[in-house]
Amino acid sequence: MTTSEPESKRAGEGAAPAWRPSGLVTLLTDFGLRDPYVGIMKGVLHRTLPGVTCVDLTHGIDPQDVAAAGFQLAHSWRWFPEGTVHVAVVDPGVGSGRAILVAEEAGHAFLAPDNGLLGAVLGAEARVFALDEDRFALPGKSSTFHGRDVFAPAAGALAGGLAPERAGRPFSGWLRPAAEAPVPSAGEGPIETRVVLVDRFGNLVTGLDVEQLALDLALWEVEVGGRRIPAGRTYAEVAPGEPLALVDSYGHLEVAVRDGDAARELNLGRGALLTLRRRE
Amino acid sequence: MTTSEPESKRAGEGAAPAWRPSGLVTLLTDFGLRDPYVGIMKGVLHRTLPGVTCVDLTHGIDPQDVAAAGFQLAHSWRWFPEGTVHVAVVDPGVGSGRAILVAEEAGHAFLAPDNGLLGAVLGAEARVFALDEDRFALPGKSSTFHGRDVFAPAAGALAGGLAPERAGRPFSGWLRPAAEAPVPSAGEGPIETRVVLVDRFGNLVTGLDVEQLALDLALWEVEVGGRRIPAGRTYAEVAPGEPLALVDSYGHLEVAVRDGDAARELNLGRGALLTLRRRE
Amino acid sequence: MTTSEPESKRAGEGAAPAWRPSGLVTLLTDFGLRDPYVGIMKGVLHRTLPGVTCVDLTHGIDPQDVAAAGFQLAHSWRWFPEGTVHVAVVDPGVGSGRAILVAEEAGHAFLAPDNGLLGAVLGAEARVFALDEDRFALPGKSSTFHGRDVFAPAAGALAGGLAPERAGRPFSGWLRPAAEAPVPSAGEGPIETRVVLVDRFGNLVTGLDVEQLALDLALWEVEVGGRRIPAGRTYAEVAPGEPLALVDSYGHLEVAVRDGDAARELNLGRGALLTLRRRE
Repeated sequence: MTTSEPESKRAGEGAAPAWRPSGLVTLLTDFGLRDPYVGIMKGVLHRTLPGVTCVDLTHGIDPQDVAAAGFQLAHSWRWFPEGTVHVAVVDPGVGSGRAILVAEEAGHAFLAPDNGLLGAVLGAEARVFALDEDRFALPGKSSTFHGRDVFAPAAGALAGGLAPERAGRPFSGWLRPAAEAPVPSAGEGPIETRVVLVDRFGNLVTGLDVEQLALDLALWEVEVGGRRIPAGRTYAEVAPGEPLALVDSYGHLEVAVRDGDAARELNLGRGALLTLRRRE
Repeated sequence: MTTSEPESKRAGEGAAPAWRPSGLVTLLTDFGLRDPYVGIMKGVLHRTLPGVTCVDLTHGIDPQDVAAAGFQLAHSWRWFPEGTVHVAVVDPGVGSGRAILVAEEAGHAFLAPDNGLLGAVLGAEARVFALDEDRFALPGKSSTFHGRDVFAPAAGALAGGLAPERAGRPFSGWLRPAAEAPVPSAGEGPIETRVVLVDRFGNLVTGLDVEQLALDLALWEVEVGGRRIPAGRTYAEVAPGEPLALVDSYGHLEVAVRDGDAARELNLGRGALLTLRRRE
Repeated sequence: MTTSEPESKRAGEGAAPAWRPSGLVTLLTDFGLRDPYVGIMKGVLHRTLPGVTCVDLTHGIDPQDVAAAGFQLAHSWRWFPEGTVHVAVVDPGVGSGRAILVAEEAGHAFLAPDNGLLGAVLGAEARVFALDEDRFALPGKSSTFHGRDVFAPAAGALAGGLAPERAGRPFSGWLRPAAEAPVPSAGEGPIETRVVLVDRFGNLVTGLDVEQLALDLALWEVEVGGRRIPAGRTYAEVAPGEPLALVDSYGHLEVAVRDGDAARELNLGRGALLTLRRRE
């Protein structure tokens, strides 16, 4: 537990800021919607906390794609009210003895397996604990569906008022994915980045956080698949069927085709390399 | 604001009927469910209005298919309680300066881009306004995701009690799609119509509103793809695997195959022409 | 109505245990999520019972697959709070005159067409009635969408407090699917079973209820598609890409591939035969 924060000094009885649940629980999984797994988790949540409100973030993460789950949760959670519990279950190691993390940051709570998923989500100020699984597990816990048997009852407890730090023990050794290659300062070049996800519209979302780096796209040329892509601000700036590079709603560099599907039309997918070169 | 309606005379303080929100917000988009875009909109709705209830109408509209969005919303909204806010975001012109419409009809409120989507939805008695976007937009509004940055906060405001006419300015020049070809009176023939959507079951839904026209299907022969299809009332009237024409749950003419997929088995899709000829 | 149960003796005023609704309604259909059919049902539910909470169990049942619907509902409903109303609409006979069943078991209520769906769901102690459709049907009831026109308003009435036995008349002739072939006692062998569903992960779920039979998988060898599959307890017990047989979260025998898709990699699907032989 971090005790160096000013808030903890002001709190009367202890080190942690007060946990004020909103009654909302978000769910992000790789379960899909064809099976009733997500519905069953909601059943357990309602048993645990009558009146809970569940919001699906997405269940369309590709099976076992921990990196995509982390990316999507990282760009979603701040849009919810403080006091929301975010449950992310992409868990190829279920039943293997991996820990479950319970964390708190900026008044939000998180539950996810300790497999790197939260590495992209939490910042330096997050407080991270190892969930006391035995305390929350349903009787006869399965070896394959901890979303139902552990995550849902623990999420219900948090949404009902249990503070994250009371749901586990301090845990500093949790997994974070390897840091991305550092981006050169804005004065230099070229910058390389890769497509990290293809969304429903075929937009190619890259790992380059343009907003965070305060890059001015107008000063850069984007090249991908041997093709130079003009930079713009909105889809409507190019003709239908034409590609453009822009800052997407996550603040990342994205390549799109107006009224079209960039992944299909440019024949590019996850992992494709983009190069930005400073305009002359 | 319309002032010619009798209700406005009876209302004590102003011209508009009172807006009584139900607390429900429906969402219809082309976002799909693989990305967290819909979940993020719900996050903003819950931030704007704690306790709001969100209902997904569908997020499976094909990307940029404004006509399909209008058709589906037109046949859905009246099944909800009065006071419901219906948000439809199929918005290829996002960021281009197109207006956002806020409308009221029969005690329901609507939010949609001004791209023709609401043309099939609203009747002559609807009151239509141009949303005051700047008033609702989140700080740092993106150029690509107004569902999150404008529609959701505006919907939350309406669901929380803000009357539609107070959310924008009167606007008469909004886009309506071209009217369908007029249908001959029931005594004449033949009648031509087209498949406007293929549903999950492969049923071929046409643009012919049988209920509105008070047609008696038993008096007509239906022909499509060079094949004559018998008319019936329920799927069970023909043998499994056999096609039939019937009035669907939207009141429209539909061609189905019992326990089968008419689109696949008849090799027909959107745009296919149907001809109805009066029986002799 | 069953009157031989001890509870009915203890109840002061009548034979039936009291119905205490939780306000929750679960929905399981073959409607998919591309069309607004599910959203429309929720609209009617909210009109019937303001404040109702709807939970999607799944809408991904293959069209008309009554057996899969029954299997999924059977393994889902007990995870919800008592007082929940479970609505299952996989209804190829809609409009044909088939009855709609309303049932009660263990404090839960059920609504489903009388087509065998509930046969796998309800136990011997269930109380089953034929719904009085005319009493709940919306005016102008369609012949093709009873989910909207009958099931939703009836579910709203049950969730609002109407006891199942007051929604219809006693009905003993409802359809149950033919019983599965009996499983030999644990001392004998071999045991044969079949894949009854393939889930989102490609896991092959069989009809063999290992938990109910109290089988010890460690004593048995599993063979499928000419291949012997080792038995385990969790996915993590074998190397990535390797198959294993285990007890899944439904208590059934399942064949999975760690971090992979068993259906695709073993080239097996629904109906595939598995044989268990006692180890020597």
